[in-house]
Amino acid sequence: MDTDSPQTAAGSVLLPDWLQRCAENRPQHLAVQSGALRWSFAELAQQATNLAQQLAALGVRSGSRVALLAANSPAYVACVHALTRLRAILVPLNTRLSETELGWQLQDARVNLLLSDPGQADRARRLLTVRPQLASAILQLRPDGSVELDPSPPQTHTTTFTPAPLIDLNAVQAIMYTSGTTGQPKGVLITYGMHWWNAIGSALNLGLHLDDCWLACLPFFHIGGLTIIMRSAIYGISINVHEKFDAGAVNSSIFSEGVTIISVVAVMLQRMLEALESEQPGAGYPAHLRCVLLGGGPAPRPLLEACAARGIPVVQTYGLTEACSQAATLSPADALRKLGSAGRPLPPVQLEIRQDGRRAAPGEAGMIYLKGPTITPGYLDRPAATREALQDGWLATGDIGYLDEEGYLYVLDRRSDLIISGGENIYPAEIEAALLSHPAVAEAGVCGQPDPRWGQVPIAFVRLHPGQSTSTESLLSHLQTRLARYKLPRAIYFVGELPRNSSGKLLRRQLPSLLDHALN
Amino acid sequence: MDTDSPQTAAGSVLLPDWLQRCAENRPQHLAVQSGALRWSFAELAQQATNLAQQLAALGVRSGSRVALLAANSPAYVACVHALTRLRAILVPLNTRLSETELGWQLQDARVNLLLSDPGQADRARRLLTVRPQLASAILQLRPDGSVELDPSPPQTHTTTFTPAPLIDLNAVQAIMYTSGTTGQPKGVLITYGMHWWNAIGSALNLGLHLDDCWLACLPFFHIGGLTIIMRSAIYGISINVHEKFDAGAVNSSIFSEGVTIISVVAVMLQRMLEALESEQPGAGYPAHLRCVLLGGGPAPRPLLEACAARGIPVVQTYGLTEACSQAATLSPADALRKLGSAGRPLPPVQLEIRQDGRRAAPGEAGMIYLKGPTITPGYLDRPAATREALQDGWLATGDIGYLDEEGYLYVLDRRSDLIISGGENIYPAEIEAALLSHPAVAEAGVCGQPDPRWGQVPIAFVRLHPGQSTSTESLLSHLQTRLARYKLPRAIYFVGELPRNSSGKLLRRQLPSLLDHALN
Repeated sequence: MDTDSPQTAAGSVLLPDWLQRCAENRPQHLAVQSGALRWSFAELAQQATNLAQQLAALGVRSGSRVALLAANSPAYVACVHALTRLRAILVPLNTRLSETELGWQLQDARVNLLLSDPGQADRARRLLTVRPQLASAILQLRPDGSVELDPSPPQTHTTTFTPAPLIDLNAVQAIMYTSGTTGQPKGVLITYGMHWWNAIGSALNLGLHLDDCWLACLPFFHIGGLTIIMRSAIYGISINVHEKFDAGAVNSSIFSEGVTIISVVAVMLQRMLEALESEQPGAGYPAHLRCVLLGGGPAPRPLLEACAARGIPVVQTYGLTEACSQAATLSPADALRKLGSAGRPLPPVQLEIRQDGRRAAPGEAGMIYLKGPTITPGYLDRPAATREALQDGWLATGDIGYLDEEGYLYVLDRRSDLIISGGENIYPAEIEAALLSHPAVAEAGVCGQPDPRWGQVPIAFVRLHPGQSTSTESLLSHLQTRLARYKLPRAIYFVGELPRNSSGKLLRRQLPSLLDHALN
Repeated sequence: MDTDSPQTAAGSVLLPDWLQRCAENRPQHLAVQSGALRWSFAELAQQATNLAQQLAALGVRSGSRVALLAANSPAYVACVHALTRLRAILVPLNTRLSETELGWQLQDARVNLLLSDPGQADRARRLLTVRPQLASAILQLRPDGSVELDPSPPQTHTTTFTPAPLIDLNAVQAIMYTSGTTGQPKGVLITYGMHWWNAIGSALNLGLHLDDCWLACLPFFHIGGLTIIMRSAIYGISINVHEKFDAGAVNSSIFSEGVTIISVVAVMLQRMLEALESEQPGAGYPAHLRCVLLGGGPAPRPLLEACAARGIPVVQTYGLTEACSQAATLSPADALRKLGSAGRPLPPVQLEIRQDGRRAAPGEAGMIYLKGPTITPGYLDRPAATREALQDGWLATGDIGYLDEEGYLYVLDRRSDLIISGGENIYPAEIEAALLSHPAVAEAGVCGQPDPRWGQVPIAFVRLHPGQSTSTESLLSHLQTRLARYKLPRAIYFVGELPRNSSGKLLRRQLPSLLDHALN
C-alpha cells in the first residue's frame, strides 16, 4: 500500500477544503476553546495557513510525513489542518510510548519531520541523537495565542505555498500505529474519506446541532481524539480542548463552556461522576450536554446504571482505528432500552458476525466484520497484513460479539488477547517480546487482569532458561526502557510451563489459571 | 448517457439501503404523516416491500423505467422507495402538464410502466389509447392505509423479488424532465449519490435534529419535493405530506403536527402569512418550526421583511433540478444579515461566477457555474446537450448572479429567459414552439411579466404570416391542448416584427419594450 500514489484516483470525490469552508461560512463562530484561548474559524484557518507556510519553508510538501509528539492543545489542532493544507501526512505519536517504541514508528513510517510540543522536546531531542538525518522543530503556542515553530524556519528557504482548495477523499490524512496479535505495530492508513464518512455517519446517528461543542479530552494521537478535530471542521462546530484528562476541569467545562458532546472511556466517566458526586450528590449534568460518547471497550454495567439514574445521556460505541473510530453506536433513543449494547452500525457501515465461515445467528457469538467507506484501505507497507485483515472489503476486526434479535451489537471481548487499560490498547505480544529480549527469559505470556480503576491491567508469566535466575525488579527495569509505562505488567509470575495448544500456540486465556500454581 | 450501464461502476460507494436502515434503527419512529394516516419507518418499509412485490409481478425489474403521474400522497412515498428496492428508475410526471407534453416524456424516457393515482386515472387512460403497448396500473391508497395496485397483478406471474440490500451512489434513481433554452424538455439523470450528497450538504448547513419533521407541500414530481422523500430516509426523520398546497392546512400542520422544516416557494409563503395574519395579526410560528426553506426563484423583499418582523426563520436557497435541488443556501445565522441572498454553496458544492470566460470579481454579475457530487452526470440520451452543459464537471446553469465580498450569492435572474410562476419553471421556447405550430403564426416570442401573486406570468408576442389572420382566443384554444394551463400566456400581442440580433437570435429581453407598440 503506497501512500505516494497519485492522490486523485479515478472515481474519487473531491470536496472543498473543510476548514476553509467553515472560515467562509461561519468565520466568527467559535472553532477552538482551551482555557482562556478562543479561536474563531477565521482565526483557526489563519493559524493553519501561517503554520503551513512555516512547514513549507522547512521543506514539507505534498506526501511528506510529519510526526507529531505532543499533548492535546490548540496548536495540535492548527497543525493537523496545516498538514491538510500542504497535503502532507500526519503521523501522530503516542506520548506515553517509550523512546524505543517511538523510534521504531519514526523508522517504519519513514518520517521526514518530527514535531514535538515543548513538554516533549527533550524526548524528541533524544530520539534525534540516533537519527541525525531527521529534521525537527518544536511546535509552540505563544502567549499571544499564535502557533509558531521553534527554531523559526530559515528566511532564505522561501517555498511558495498555495493551500490546496480541494480535499481528495482517497488521499491519506494520517498514519496511525496500532498493534495486533502479532505484537508488531502496524501503520493504519487513515484517509480523508474515512473521516468524512465517519463524521457523516456519526451525525446521522447523533444528530447535528449548529451550536454543538465537542469536548476533546481523549488524546489527539488516538483515533477517538483525532476524529474530533476533523468532525469540527466537517460540521463547523466548536472543540473544547483539554490538554489532559482532569475530571474537575472537564466537569467545569461541561457546566460553563456550553459542551454538548464529549468522548470518553469508562475510567474517565467514572472519575467525572466521582468528582460530580463529591460536589453535589446525585446530581447530573446540565441539559445542553446531549451526548456522552463512551468508547474504548465494554463499559461496566454499574457505571452505565449510575449514569442512567442521573439522566446522563451515555451513548456506547464500538470503534477501532481501522474504522476511523465509531463503527457501531447506540442511538440516544435506545440508550436505556439497550443498556450495555454498542448499538447498530453507523449508516454507511455494514457489520456482520461470522462464526466458522458463516453468518452467525442472532445471539450467537462470533468475530465482528466491518465494511464500508469508513474502513481503512490497509496498513502502510504491509501487503500481507492488509490482505489478511481485508478480504473483499470486509475487515476482520478480531473482536468478538453477537447481535441480538433486533440487530444490536454486544461486544463480548476485544481481539481475543487485547488488554484495554484506561482506554489504552495493550497488546500482550508486545510485552512478551520485550520480556523475551531479556537473556534469562525462555518463554513469556501476558494477559489482562480485572482492575476496579483501569478496567484491566496486564500481568505476565515467564519461564526462565534452565539454570538462569532473575528477579521481578530486574525484569521490570529491563522493560522500562522498552515499553510505555502503562504497558508494564502489574505483576510478573515465574512458572515452570506456559499453556500451549498442540501446535505450540500460546493459550493466553488459560494464563489466569496459572495463578493457583504461581511460584511467587 | 446510458442508464442501463452496469450499476456498480469502479470507485462507486455502496451504502446500506437507507429506508431499511431506518426500519432497523428507528422502527417505531414516525416516517410519514398525512392527515390521519401515520406510518412508522417499519410500516413504510413494509409498504414499500409489498408494493415492490406487486411491481415485480408486473415485470418491473432493475433498470425498468416507471412513470408516476400522481399528486403528493403517502402512496407516492411508498412508490419511490419500492422502485429503489427494485433498482428501477422513477420518471416523475408533472400532473399539470398537457397530455401532449406527458406523451412526449413517456416516449422520450422509453417508459415501461405508467402508474397514476386515482385522480389522474382518466388522463392516464387517454395517454394509453395511443400507446397500447405501455403497461399501466393505478396506485391506490386503501382506506386501511395500505398501498395497492389496481388492477392487482396477475397471481400467475410470480416473480421472485429480493430487495437490493445496498444502494449504489452511481445508480440512476430518477429521470426528471426540465426544459431549457432550446424549449425541448430534457431528462435530467438524478443519481442516488446526488440525493445523498445533497441531503448531507443540507444537513451540514441547517443542522439535523433527530426529531425533525419536514413538511412536503411542494409536488414530489419536482426536485424540491422528491428530495424531501430521500432526505427523510437518509436522515431517519418524518415527512408531513400535503396532497396540495392549502395555506390553512399547512399552517395547521405547522402548529399541531410538530413540523420543524418546510420547503416553500414565495407564493406559498405569502399565502401562509396571509392566512396566519387573518387568524392572529402580527403572529409568527411556534419555535419548533426552525427552518422555512424558500426556493423557486428570487423572493420579493417585502415578503422577507414581513417574515423577519414575525421571527419566521426563512432561509433562502438557490436550486435547480441538475443540482438535485439546493445548490446554495443561506445559513440560518445569516438569514437577516444577508436578507435577499441565496447564501453560500452547500459544503460539497463548488460555485463560480464567470463572465467572458474568466472568474468574475466580487460584485460583478455573470453566469453561475456549479461542480460537485450533487450535480447531474448529464441528460438522458442527449450527449450533445450534456457536453454543452457540463464541461470539466462544471455545470453551466444559465442563471445570472454575483457573489458579494464575503462570497454570498445573489441570484439576479434565472436562465436569461426562464419564467418562474408560482414556483413552476416556464421556458419561453416551449410556448413559442406551440404558438409556431399554429398555421397563421410566422414568429413568436415569449417573456415574463411581473405579477403580484405569481411572481411572473408569461406573455406572448406573435407575428402572423402575411395575409393570415387569427384571434387571441383561437391561439389560446390551440395552446390549451398542447401546454399545461400554467404555461398559457396571460396576454398575446400581435406585432409586425420581433427583436432579433444580427444573427437572427430572438432577443427575449427586449420583448417588453414592444408593449408600447402593441397592436391590441
